Amino acid sequence: MGLGLIGGSLGLALRRGRAARRVIGFSRSEATLRRALARGAVDDGDTELCPNWLGQSDLVVIATPPLSVVPAARRIAKITTGKLILTDCASTKARIVREAERVLPGRISFVGGHPMAGSELSGIAAAQAGLFRGAVCVLTPSRRSPPSAVGKVSRLWRSLGARVVNLPPDRHDALVAQVSHAPHLAAAALVLAASPEALKLSAGGFRDATRVALSDPDLWGEIFSTNGPEVGRAVSRLIRELTRLKGLVAGGRPSSLKRSLLAARSRRRPLTP
Amino acid sequence: MGLGLIGGSLGLALRRGRAARRVIGFSRSEATLRRALARGAVDDGDTELCPNWLGQSDLVVIATPPLSVVPAARRIAKITTGKLILTDCASTKARIVREAERVLPGRISFVGGHPMAGSELSGIAAAQAGLFRGAVCVLTPSRRSPPSAVGKVSRLWRSLGARVVNLPPDRHDALVAQVSHAPHLAAAALVLAASPEALKLSAGGFRDATRVALSDPDLWGEIFSTNGPEVGRAVSRLIRELTRLKGLVAGGRPSSLKRSLLAARSRRRPLTP
Repeated sequence: MGLGLIGGSLGLALRRGRAARRVIGFSRSEATLRRALARGAVDDGDTELCPNWLGQSDLVVIATPPLSVVPAARRIAKITTGKLILTDCASTKARIVREAERVLPGRISFVGGHPMAGSELSGIAAAQAGLFRGAVCVLTPSRRSPPSAVGKVSRLWRSLGARVVNLPPDRHDALVAQVSHAPHLAAAALVLAASPEALKLSAGGFRDATRVALSDPDLWGEIFSTNGPEVGRAVSRLIRELTRLKGLVAGGRPSSLKRSLLAARSRRRPLTP
Repeated sequence: MGLGLIGGSLGLALRRGRAARRVIGFSRSEATLRRALARGAVDDGDTELCPNWLGQSDLVVIATPPLSVVPAARRIAKITTGKLILTDCASTKARIVREAERVLPGRISFVGGHPMAGSELSGIAAAQAGLFRGAVCVLTPSRRSPPSAVGKVSRLWRSLGARVVNLPPDRHDALVAQVSHAPHLAAAALVLAASPEALKLSAGGFRDATRVALSDPDLWGEIFSTNGPEVGRAVSRLIRELTRLKGLVAGGRPSSLKRSLLAARSRRRPLTP
Protein backbone atom coordinates (compact mmCIF):
# COMPACT_ATOMS: atom_id res chain seq x y z
CA MET A 1 0.00 0.00 0.00
CA GLY A 2 1.67 3.16 -1.25
CA LEU A 3 3.77 2.92 -4.41
CA GLY A 4 6.38 5.59 -3.82
CA LEU A 5 10.12 5.14 -3.52
CA ILE A 6 9.80 2.53 -0.76
CA GLY A 7 6.66 0.68 -1.86
CA GLY A 8 7.79 0.71 -5.49
CA SER A 9 11.28 -0.55 -4.61
CA LEU A 10 9.77 -3.24 -2.41
CA GLY A 11 7.54 -4.42 -5.28
CA LEU A 12 10.45 -4.45 -7.73
CA ALA A 13 12.65 -6.37 -5.28
CA LEU A 14 9.95 -8.91 -4.44
CA ARG A 15 9.16 -9.59 -8.07
CA ARG A 16 12.79 -9.71 -9.28
CA GLY A 17 13.77 -12.02 -6.44
CA ARG A 18 10.61 -14.11 -6.76
CA ALA A 19 10.22 -13.56 -3.04
CA ALA A 20 6.41 -13.42 -3.26
CA ARG A 21 3.91 -15.38 -5.29
CA ARG A 22 2.06 -12.23 -6.20
CA VAL A 23 2.51 -8.53 -5.47
CA ILE A 24 -0.63 -6.40 -5.39
CA GLY A 25 -0.15 -2.65 -5.20
CA PHE A 26 -2.51 0.03 -3.98
CA SER A 27 -2.09 3.69 -4.80
CA ARG A 28 -4.70 6.41 -4.75
CA SER A 29 -3.04 7.83 -7.86
CA GLU A 30 -3.97 6.08 -11.07
CA ALA A 31 -0.87 7.49 -12.78
CA THR A 32 1.35 5.99 -10.08
CA LEU A 33 -0.40 2.64 -10.32
CA ARG A 34 0.01 2.58 -14.09
CA ARG A 35 3.67 3.44 -13.75
CA ALA A 36 4.17 0.72 -11.12
CA LEU A 37 2.59 -1.81 -13.47
CA ALA A 38 4.71 -0.58 -16.38
CA ARG A 39 7.90 -0.83 -14.33
CA GLY A 40 7.00 -4.32 -13.16
CA ALA A 41 6.82 -3.29 -9.52
CA VAL A 42 3.44 -5.01 -9.06
CA ASP A 43 1.59 -7.91 -10.65
CA ASP A 44 -1.70 -6.15 -10.29
CA GLY A 45 -3.25 -3.38 -8.25
CA ASP A 46 -5.96 -0.85 -7.69
CA THR A 47 -6.61 2.71 -6.61
CA GLU A 48 -8.89 1.49 -3.81
CA LEU A 49 -8.24 -1.12 -1.14
CA CYS A 50 -10.04 -4.29 -2.26
CA PRO A 51 -11.45 -6.63 0.43
CA ASN A 52 -10.98 -9.68 -1.78
CA TRP A 53 -7.30 -9.04 -2.46
CA LEU A 54 -6.63 -8.10 1.16
CA GLY A 55 -8.37 -11.29 2.28
CA GLN A 56 -6.03 -13.37 0.12
CA SER A 57 -2.88 -11.62 1.33
CA ASP A 58 -0.26 -13.22 3.56
CA LEU A 59 1.14 -9.84 4.41
CA VAL A 60 0.22 -6.21 3.84
CA VAL A 61 3.02 -3.65 3.79
CA ILE A 62 1.94 -0.05 4.40
CA ALA A 63 4.51 2.15 2.70
CA THR A 64 3.04 5.60 3.33
CA PRO A 65 4.33 8.62 5.27
CA PRO A 66 4.08 8.24 9.08
CA LEU A 67 0.77 10.03 9.66
CA SER A 68 -1.07 7.86 7.12
CA VAL A 69 0.01 4.49 8.53
CA VAL A 70 -2.57 4.08 11.29
CA PRO A 71 -5.48 5.49 9.23
CA ALA A 72 -4.53 3.02 6.48
CA ALA A 73 -4.36 0.15 8.96
CA ARG A 74 -7.81 1.10 10.30
CA ARG A 75 -9.30 1.16 6.82
CA ILE A 76 -7.82 -2.28 6.17
CA ALA A 77 -9.31 -3.56 9.44
CA LYS A 78 -12.70 -2.15 8.51
CA ILE A 79 -12.98 -3.89 5.14
CA THR A 80 -11.56 -7.29 6.15
CA THR A 81 -12.83 -9.98 8.47
CA GLY A 82 -10.05 -12.58 8.72
CA LYS A 83 -6.60 -12.71 10.25
CA LEU A 84 -3.98 -10.46 8.68
CA ILE A 85 -0.39 -9.43 9.24
CA LEU A 86 0.36 -5.74 8.73
CA THR A 87 3.71 -4.02 8.74
CA ASP A 88 4.83 -0.53 7.78
CA CYS A 89 7.93 1.31 6.59
CA ALA A 90 7.69 4.64 8.38
CA SER A 91 10.74 6.37 9.87
CA THR A 92 9.17 6.81 13.31
CA LYS A 93 7.74 3.96 15.32
CA ALA A 94 6.63 4.60 18.92
CA ARG A 95 3.52 6.60 18.15
CA ILE A 96 2.49 4.40 15.20
CA VAL A 97 2.88 1.15 17.16
CA ARG A 98 1.06 2.57 20.19
CA GLU A 99 -1.87 3.81 18.11
CA ALA A 100 -2.03 0.75 15.88
CA GLU A 101 -2.29 -1.52 18.91
CA ARG A 102 -4.96 0.67 20.43
CA VAL A 103 -7.21 0.77 17.38
CA LEU A 104 -6.69 -2.55 15.58
CA PRO A 105 -8.74 -5.67 16.37
CA GLY A 106 -6.93 -8.72 17.80
CA ARG A 107 -7.13 -10.64 14.51
CA ILE A 108 -4.77 -8.13 12.94
CA SER A 109 -1.11 -8.46 13.89
CA PHE A 110 0.81 -5.24 13.47
CA VAL A 111 4.62 -5.41 13.30
CA GLY A 112 6.24 -1.99 13.04
CA GLY A 113 9.03 -1.82 10.47
CA HIS A 114 11.57 0.67 9.15
CA PRO A 115 13.76 -0.32 6.23
CA MET A 116 16.65 2.15 6.57
CA ALA A 117 17.19 2.82 2.93
CA GLY A 118 16.01 5.56 0.66
CA SER A 119 17.33 8.66 -0.95
CA GLU A 120 16.49 12.31 -1.38
CA LEU A 121 14.30 11.26 -4.30
CA SER A 122 10.73 10.08 -3.98
CA GLY A 123 8.05 8.45 -6.07
CA ILE A 124 7.80 5.32 -8.16
CA ALA A 125 10.19 6.81 -10.75
CA ALA A 126 13.02 6.64 -8.21
CA ALA A 127 12.26 3.06 -7.12
CA GLN A 128 15.10 0.53 -7.41
CA ALA A 129 15.02 -3.23 -6.97
CA GLY A 130 18.33 -3.18 -5.05
CA LEU A 131 17.37 -0.44 -2.57
CA PHE A 132 17.22 -2.74 0.46
CA ARG A 133 20.25 -4.90 -0.31
CA GLY A 134 22.69 -4.49 2.57
CA ALA A 135 20.39 -2.06 4.37
CA VAL A 136 19.32 -2.39 7.97
CA CYS A 137 15.61 -3.00 8.51
CA VAL A 138 14.47 -2.30 12.05
CA LEU A 139 11.41 -4.19 13.29
CA THR A 140 9.68 -3.00 16.42
CA PRO A 141 7.50 -5.87 17.60
CA SER A 142 5.57 -5.38 20.81
CA ARG A 143 4.18 -7.86 23.32
CA ARG A 144 1.08 -7.99 21.15
CA SER A 145 2.98 -9.07 18.00
CA PRO A 146 2.76 -12.86 17.58
CA PRO A 147 6.22 -14.40 16.99
CA SER A 148 4.94 -16.01 13.79
CA ALA A 149 4.01 -12.56 12.39
CA VAL A 150 7.38 -11.11 13.40
CA GLY A 151 9.08 -14.09 11.73
CA LYS A 152 7.14 -13.56 8.52
CA VAL A 153 7.98 -9.86 8.27
CA SER A 154 11.57 -10.62 9.19
CA ARG A 155 11.90 -13.23 6.44
CA LEU A 156 10.40 -10.77 3.94
CA TRP A 157 13.17 -8.22 4.51
CA ARG A 158 15.92 -10.81 4.78
CA SER A 159 14.86 -12.31 1.47
CA LEU A 160 15.56 -8.90 -0.09
CA GLY A 161 19.08 -8.73 1.34
CA ALA A 162 18.34 -6.51 4.34
CA ARG A 163 19.78 -7.08 7.80
CA VAL A 164 16.93 -7.22 10.31
CA VAL A 165 17.36 -5.68 13.76
CA ASN A 166 14.62 -5.93 16.40
CA LEU A 167 14.24 -2.97 18.75
CA PRO A 168 11.55 -1.59 21.07
CA PRO A 169 9.70 1.24 19.25
CA ASP A 170 10.90 4.02 21.56
CA ARG A 171 14.49 2.78 21.37
CA HIS A 172 14.24 2.84 17.56
CA ASP A 173 13.02 6.42 17.64
CA ALA A 174 15.84 7.55 19.94
CA LEU A 175 18.58 5.91 17.86
CA VAL A 176 17.22 6.93 14.47
CA ALA A 177 16.86 10.51 15.72
CA GLN A 178 20.66 10.49 16.13
CA VAL A 179 21.63 9.05 12.74
CA SER A 180 18.82 10.25 10.53
CA HIS A 181 16.44 12.88 11.90
CA ALA A 182 18.95 15.21 13.60
CA PRO A 183 21.37 14.88 10.64
CA HIS A 184 18.48 15.86 8.38
CA LEU A 185 17.96 19.09 10.33
CA ALA A 186 21.75 19.60 10.27
CA ALA A 187 21.75 19.37 6.47
CA ALA A 188 18.98 21.97 6.26
CA ALA A 189 20.83 24.15 8.78
CA LEU A 190 24.09 23.92 6.79
CA VAL A 191 22.32 25.15 3.67
CA LEU A 192 20.36 27.88 5.46
CA ALA A 193 23.37 29.14 7.44
CA ALA A 194 25.52 29.59 4.33
CA SER A 195 25.24 32.84 2.39
CA PRO A 196 24.27 32.67 -1.30
CA GLU A 197 27.80 33.79 -2.21
CA ALA A 198 29.31 31.02 -0.08
CA LEU A 199 27.00 28.42 -1.64
CA LYS A 200 28.46 29.28 -5.03
CA LEU A 201 31.84 28.02 -3.79
CA SER A 202 30.53 24.73 -2.42
CA ALA A 203 32.20 21.54 -3.58
CA GLY A 204 31.55 17.80 -3.34
CA GLY A 205 31.89 17.60 0.43
CA PHE A 206 29.16 20.17 0.98
CA ARG A 207 26.94 18.66 -1.67
CA ASP A 208 27.17 15.23 -0.04
CA ALA A 209 26.67 16.67 3.43
CA THR A 210 23.47 18.41 2.34
CA ARG A 211 22.05 15.94 -0.17
CA VAL A 212 19.18 14.98 2.13
CA ALA A 213 18.05 18.61 2.18
CA LEU A 214 16.61 17.80 -1.28
CA SER A 215 14.08 15.42 0.31
CA ASP A 216 10.31 15.90 0.40
CA PRO A 217 9.46 18.54 3.07
CA ASP A 218 5.99 17.08 3.64
CA LEU A 219 7.31 13.62 4.42
CA TRP A 220 9.99 15.03 6.71
CA GLY A 221 7.51 17.32 8.42
CA GLU A 222 5.57 14.19 9.40
CA ILE A 223 8.74 12.45 10.60
CA PHE A 224 9.67 15.40 12.82
CA SER A 225 6.13 15.81 14.13
CA THR A 226 5.98 12.16 15.20
CA ASN A 227 9.40 12.10 16.90
CA GLY A 228 9.72 15.61 18.35
CA PRO A 229 11.19 14.91 21.81
CA GLU A 230 13.85 12.48 20.52
CA VAL A 231 14.77 14.80 17.65
CA GLY A 232 15.11 17.61 20.20
CA ARG A 233 17.43 15.52 22.39
CA ALA A 234 19.56 14.42 19.43
CA VAL A 235 19.87 17.98 18.08
CA SER A 236 20.84 19.18 21.57
CA ARG A 237 23.61 16.57 21.70
CA LEU A 238 24.77 17.67 18.27
CA ILE A 239 24.81 21.34 19.30
CA ARG A 240 26.78 20.50 22.46
CA GLU A 241 29.33 18.60 20.39
CA LEU A 242 29.60 21.41 17.82
CA THR A 243 30.02 23.96 20.61
CA ARG A 244 32.78 21.86 22.14
CA LEU A 245 34.63 21.52 18.81
CA LYS A 246 34.23 25.24 18.15
CA GLY A 247 35.79 25.89 21.54
CA LEU A 248 38.79 23.73 20.66
CA VAL A 249 39.28 25.67 17.41
CA ALA A 250 38.84 29.05 19.06
CA GLY A 251 40.95 28.18 22.09
CA GLY A 252 43.91 27.17 19.97
CA ARG A 253 43.87 23.63 21.37
CA PRO A 254 45.28 21.79 18.34
CA SER A 255 46.09 18.55 20.15
CA SER A 256 42.61 18.22 21.70
CA LEU A 257 41.05 19.11 18.38
CA LYS A 258 43.16 16.51 16.62
CA ARG A 259 42.13 13.90 19.18
CA SER A 260 38.47 14.63 18.42
CA LEU A 261 39.00 14.51 14.65
CA LEU A 262 40.82 11.19 15.05
CA ALA A 263 38.00 9.83 17.22
CA ALA A 264 35.41 10.92 14.64
CA ARG A 265 37.41 9.29 11.86
CA SER A 266 37.80 5.98 13.65
CA ARG A 267 34.09 5.84 14.54
CA ARG A 268 33.11 6.75 10.98
CA ARG A 269 35.42 4.21 9.34
CA PRO A 270 33.41 1.02 9.89
CA LEU A 271 30.41 2.69 8.20
CA THR A 272 32.16 2.96 4.83
CA PRO A 273 29.93 1.00 2.42
CA MET B 1 55.72 20.85 -4.87
CA GLY B 2 53.90 18.24 -2.83
CA LEU B 3 52.61 15.17 -4.61
CA GLY B 4 49.57 14.26 -2.55
CA LEU B 5 45.95 14.17 -3.69
CA ILE B 6 46.04 17.74 -5.03
CA GLY B 7 49.60 17.90 -6.39
CA GLY B 8 49.30 14.42 -7.89
CA SER B 9 45.94 15.18 -9.50
CA LEU B 10 47.31 18.45 -10.85
CA GLY B 11 50.25 16.63 -12.42
CA LEU B 12 48.01 13.98 -13.97
CA ALA B 13 45.62 16.62 -15.34
CA LEU B 14 48.42 18.77 -16.75
CA ARG B 15 50.08 15.84 -18.48
CA ARG B 16 46.87 14.24 -19.81
CA GLY B 17 45.63 17.58 -21.10
CA ARG B 18 49.07 18.57 -22.46
CA ALA B 19 48.54 21.79 -20.56
CA ALA B 20 52.23 22.11 -19.65
CA ARG B 21 55.40 21.41 -21.60
CA ARG B 22 56.91 19.62 -18.65
CA VAL B 23 55.76 18.80 -15.13
CA ILE B 24 58.45 18.49 -12.47
CA GLY B 25 57.40 17.16 -9.09
CA PHE B 26 59.00 17.59 -5.70
CA SER B 27 58.23 15.37 -2.74
CA ARG B 28 60.32 14.74 0.33
CA SER B 29 59.19 11.12 0.16
CA GLU B 30 61.07 9.00 -2.33
CA ALA B 31 58.23 6.45 -2.35
CA THR B 32 55.72 9.16 -3.27
CA LEU B 33 57.97 10.49 -6.00
CA ARG B 34 58.42 7.02 -7.46
CA ARG B 35 54.69 6.46 -7.37
CA ALA B 36 54.01 9.82 -9.05
CA LEU B 37 56.44 8.89 -11.82
CA ALA B 38 54.87 5.46 -12.19
CA ARG B 39 51.36 6.93 -12.39
CA GLY B 40 52.47 9.49 -14.97
CA ALA B 41 51.71 12.44 -12.72
CA VAL B 42 55.14 14.01 -13.38
CA ASP B 43 57.69 13.97 -16.15
CA ASP B 44 60.54 14.11 -13.70
CA GLY B 45 61.16 15.11 -10.13
CA ASP B 46 63.29 15.05 -7.03
CA THR B 47 63.13 14.77 -3.26
CA GLU B 48 64.89 18.13 -2.90
CA LEU B 49 64.07 21.48 -4.48
CA CYS B 50 66.52 21.94 -7.35
CA PRO B 51 67.63 25.50 -8.24
CA ASN B 52 68.12 24.61 -11.88
CA TRP B 53 64.63 23.19 -12.36
CA LEU B 54 63.05 26.01 -10.40
CA GLY B 55 64.96 28.54 -12.53
CA GLN B 56 63.49 27.02 -15.68
CA SER B 57 59.92 26.97 -14.36
CA ASP B 58 57.15 29.24 -15.62
CA LEU B 59 55.10 28.49 -12.56
CA VAL B 60 55.59 26.71 -9.25
CA VAL B 61 52.51 25.26 -7.54
CA ILE B 62 52.88 24.59 -3.83
CA ALA B 63 50.44 21.81 -2.98
CA THR B 64 51.21 21.28 0.69
CA PRO B 65 49.09 21.68 3.84
CA PRO B 66 48.55 25.34 4.89
CA LEU B 67 51.33 25.66 7.45
CA SER B 68 53.99 24.46 5.00
CA VAL B 69 53.15 26.87 2.18
CA VAL B 70 55.09 29.93 3.35
CA PRO B 71 58.13 27.94 4.56
CA ALA B 72 58.21 26.24 1.13
CA ALA B 73 57.93 29.59 -0.64
CA ARG B 74 60.81 30.95 1.45
CA ARG B 75 63.01 27.98 0.60
CA ILE B 76 62.24 28.50 -3.07
CA ALA B 77 63.14 32.19 -2.76
CA LYS B 78 66.40 31.28 -1.04
CA ILE B 79 67.68 28.96 -3.76
CA THR B 80 66.59 30.96 -6.80
CA THR B 81 67.68 34.30 -8.17
CA GLY B 82 65.34 35.12 -11.06
CA LYS B 83 61.71 36.08 -11.39
CA LEU B 84 59.22 33.39 -10.49
CA ILE B 85 55.46 32.96 -10.15
CA LEU B 86 54.32 30.98 -7.14
CA THR B 87 50.82 29.80 -6.31
CA ASP B 88 49.44 27.41 -3.72
CA CYS B 89 46.42 25.17 -3.14
CA ALA B 90 45.77 25.55 0.57
CA SER B 91 42.23 25.77 1.99
CA THR B 92 42.93 28.99 3.94
CA LYS B 93 44.28 32.11 2.37
CA ALA B 94 44.45 35.30 4.44
CA ARG B 95 47.33 34.29 6.70
CA ILE B 96 49.29 32.63 3.90
CA VAL B 97 48.98 35.60 1.54
CA ARG B 98 49.86 38.08 4.29
CA GLU B 99 52.94 36.13 5.35
CA ALA B 100 54.05 35.30 1.82
CA GLU B 101 53.98 39.00 0.87
CA ARG B 102 55.88 39.91 4.00
CA VAL B 103 58.73 37.44 3.50
CA LEU B 104 59.11 37.01 -0.26
CA PRO B 105 61.37 39.24 -2.37
CA GLY B 106 59.78 41.43 -5.05
CA ARG B 107 61.00 39.24 -7.92
CA ILE B 108 58.69 36.48 -6.69
CA SER B 109 54.99 36.93 -7.48
CA PHE B 110 52.76 35.01 -5.12
CA VAL B 111 49.15 34.37 -6.19
CA GLY B 112 47.11 32.56 -3.53
CA GLY B 113 44.99 29.75 -4.88
CA HIS B 114 42.47 27.23 -3.64
CA PRO B 115 41.13 24.62 -6.05
CA MET B 116 37.90 23.54 -4.32
CA ALA B 117 38.08 19.88 -5.10
CA GLY B 118 39.30 16.94 -3.15
CA SER B 119 37.93 14.09 -1.18
CA GLU B 120 38.28 12.41 2.16
CA LEU B 121 41.19 10.47 0.68
CA SER B 122 44.73 11.73 0.51
CA GLY B 123 48.02 10.87 -1.11
CA ILE B 124 49.18 10.21 -4.63
CA ALA B 125 47.25 6.91 -4.71
CA ALA B 126 43.97 8.87 -4.60
CA ALA B 127 45.01 11.36 -7.31
CA GLN B 128 42.71 11.66 -10.35
CA ALA B 129 43.24 13.51 -13.60
CA GLY B 130 39.62 14.76 -13.61
CA LEU B 131 39.59 16.10 -10.04
CA PHE B 132 39.43 19.77 -11.04
CA ARG B 133 36.99 19.45 -13.94
CA GLY B 134 33.94 21.55 -13.10
CA ALA B 135 35.40 22.60 -9.75
CA VAL B 136 35.69 26.16 -8.56
CA CYS B 137 39.24 27.44 -8.10
CA VAL B 138 39.44 30.56 -5.97
CA LEU B 139 42.41 32.88 -6.58
CA THR B 140 43.22 35.52 -4.01
CA PRO B 141 45.49 38.03 -5.73
CA SER B 142 46.58 41.06 -3.72
CA ARG B 143 47.75 44.50 -4.80
CA ARG B 144 51.24 43.02 -4.99
CA SER B 145 50.23 40.29 -7.49
CA PRO B 146 51.11 41.42 -11.06
CA PRO B 147 48.13 40.96 -13.43
CA SER B 148 50.30 38.86 -15.72
CA ALA B 149 51.01 36.40 -12.88
CA VAL B 150 47.32 36.25 -11.93
CA GLY B 151 46.49 35.63 -15.60
CA LYS B 152 48.98 32.81 -15.83
CA VAL B 153 47.67 31.01 -12.74
CA SER B 154 44.13 31.61 -13.90
CA ARG B 155 44.81 30.05 -17.30
CA LEU B 156 46.44 27.04 -15.63
CA TRP B 157 43.26 26.17 -13.71
CA ARG B 158 40.93 27.02 -16.58
CA SER B 159 42.90 24.73 -18.88
CA LEU B 160 42.05 21.89 -16.48
CA GLY B 161 38.33 22.61 -16.60
CA ALA B 162 38.05 24.60 -13.36
CA ARG B 163 35.98 27.76 -12.99
CA VAL B 164 38.20 30.54 -11.61
CA VAL B 165 36.79 33.00 -9.09
CA ASN B 166 38.88 35.90 -7.77
CA LEU B 167 38.30 36.96 -4.18
CA PRO B 168 40.16 38.94 -1.51
CA PRO B 169 41.92 36.46 0.83
CA ASP B 170 39.83 37.29 3.90
CA ARG B 171 36.62 37.08 1.91
CA HIS B 172 37.68 33.63 0.68
CA ASP B 173 38.30 32.50 4.24
CA ALA B 174 34.91 33.73 5.45
CA LEU B 175 32.98 32.06 2.62
CA VAL B 176 34.89 28.79 2.67
CA ALA B 177 34.42 28.59 6.44
CA GLN B 178 30.67 28.39 5.72
CA VAL B 179 30.68 25.74 2.99
CA SER B 180 33.72 23.68 3.93
CA HIS B 181 35.31 24.28 7.34
CA ALA B 182 32.17 24.54 9.50
CA PRO B 183 30.54 21.61 7.62
CA HIS B 184 33.68 19.61 8.35
CA LEU B 185 33.26 20.21 12.09
CA ALA B 186 29.56 19.39 11.70
CA ALA B 187 30.43 16.02 10.16
CA ALA B 188 32.76 15.24 13.07
CA ALA B 189 30.09 16.41 15.53
CA LEU B 190 27.42 14.21 13.90
CA VAL B 191 29.64 11.16 14.31
CA LEU B 192 30.72 12.03 17.85
CA ALA B 193 27.19 12.88 19.03
CA ALA B 194 25.75 9.55 17.87
CA SER B 195 25.96 6.57 20.20
CA PRO B 196 27.75 3.42 18.96
CA GLU B 197 24.38 1.63 18.88
CA ALA B 198 22.86 4.41 16.77
CA LEU B 199 25.82 4.36 14.37
CA LYS B 200 25.04 0.71 13.63
CA LEU B 201 21.69 1.82 12.18
CA SER B 202 23.14 4.52 9.97
CA ALA B 203 22.26 4.47 6.28
CA GLY B 204 23.40 6.23 3.11
CA GLY B 205 22.27 9.70 4.16
CA PHE B 206 24.39 9.61 7.31
CA ARG B 207 27.35 8.11 5.49
CA ASP B 208 27.27 10.88 2.89
CA ALA B 209 26.77 13.56 5.54
CA THR B 210 29.84 12.37 7.45
CA ARG B 211 32.13 11.26 4.63
CA VAL B 212 34.54 14.16 5.20
CA ALA B 213 35.06 12.96 8.79
CA LEU B 214 37.33 10.35 7.17
CA SER B 215 39.77 13.09 6.12
CA ASP B 216 43.31 13.54 7.41
CA PRO B 217 43.13 15.09 10.93
CA ASP B 218 46.59 16.69 10.59
CA LEU B 219 45.66 18.54 7.42
CA TRP B 220 42.35 19.68 8.92
CA GLY B 221 44.02 20.72 12.15
CA GLU B 222 46.14 23.11 10.06
CA ILE B 223 43.10 24.39 8.20
CA PHE B 224 41.26 25.14 11.46
CA SER B 225 44.31 26.70 13.08
CA THR B 226 44.76 29.10 10.17
CA ASN B 227 41.11 30.17 9.95
CA GLY B 228 39.97 30.08 13.58
CA PRO B 229 37.87 33.27 13.83
CA GLU B 230 35.96 32.65 10.58
CA VAL B 231 35.36 29.00 11.47
CA GLY B 232 34.04 30.17 14.84
CA ARG B 233 31.65 32.63 13.20
CA ALA B 234 30.40 30.05 10.69
CA VAL B 235 29.88 27.40 13.38
CA SER B 236 27.98 29.96 15.48
CA ARG B 237 25.67 30.68 12.54
CA LEU B 238 25.16 26.96 12.07
CA ILE B 239 24.34 26.47 15.75
CA ARG B 240 21.87 29.37 15.66
CA GLU B 241 20.15 27.83 12.64
CA LEU B 242 20.04 24.37 14.24
CA THR B 243 18.64 25.86 17.44
CA ARG B 244 15.95 27.66 15.46
CA LEU B 245 14.96 24.48 13.56
CA LYS B 246 14.94 22.50 16.81
CA GLY B 247 12.58 25.10 18.25
CA LEU B 248 10.21 24.68 15.30
CA VAL B 249 10.18 20.90 15.82
CA ALA B 250 9.73 21.16 19.59
CA GLY B 251 7.14 23.93 19.39
CA GLY B 252 4.93 21.94 17.05
CA ARG B 253 5.17 24.59 14.33
CA PRO B 254 4.75 22.35 11.28
CA SER B 255 4.06 25.12 8.80
CA SER B 256 7.10 27.20 9.82
CA LEU B 257 9.23 24.06 9.80
CA LYS B 258 7.98 23.16 6.35
CA ARG B 259 8.80 26.65 5.10
CA SER B 260 12.37 26.21 6.31
CA LEU B 261 12.72 22.76 4.76
CA LEU B 262 11.37 24.14 1.48
CA ALA B 263 13.81 27.06 1.63
CA ALA B 264 16.72 24.67 2.29
CA ARG B 265 15.67 22.49 -0.62
CA SER B 266 15.37 25.34 -3.07
CA ARG B 267 18.77 26.76 -2.07
CA ARG B 268 20.37 23.32 -2.27
CA ARG B 269 18.90 22.45 -5.68
CA PRO B 270 21.19 24.48 -7.94
CA LEU B 271 24.20 22.76 -6.34
CA THR B 272 23.24 19.32 -7.64
CA PRO B 273 26.17 18.25 -9.80
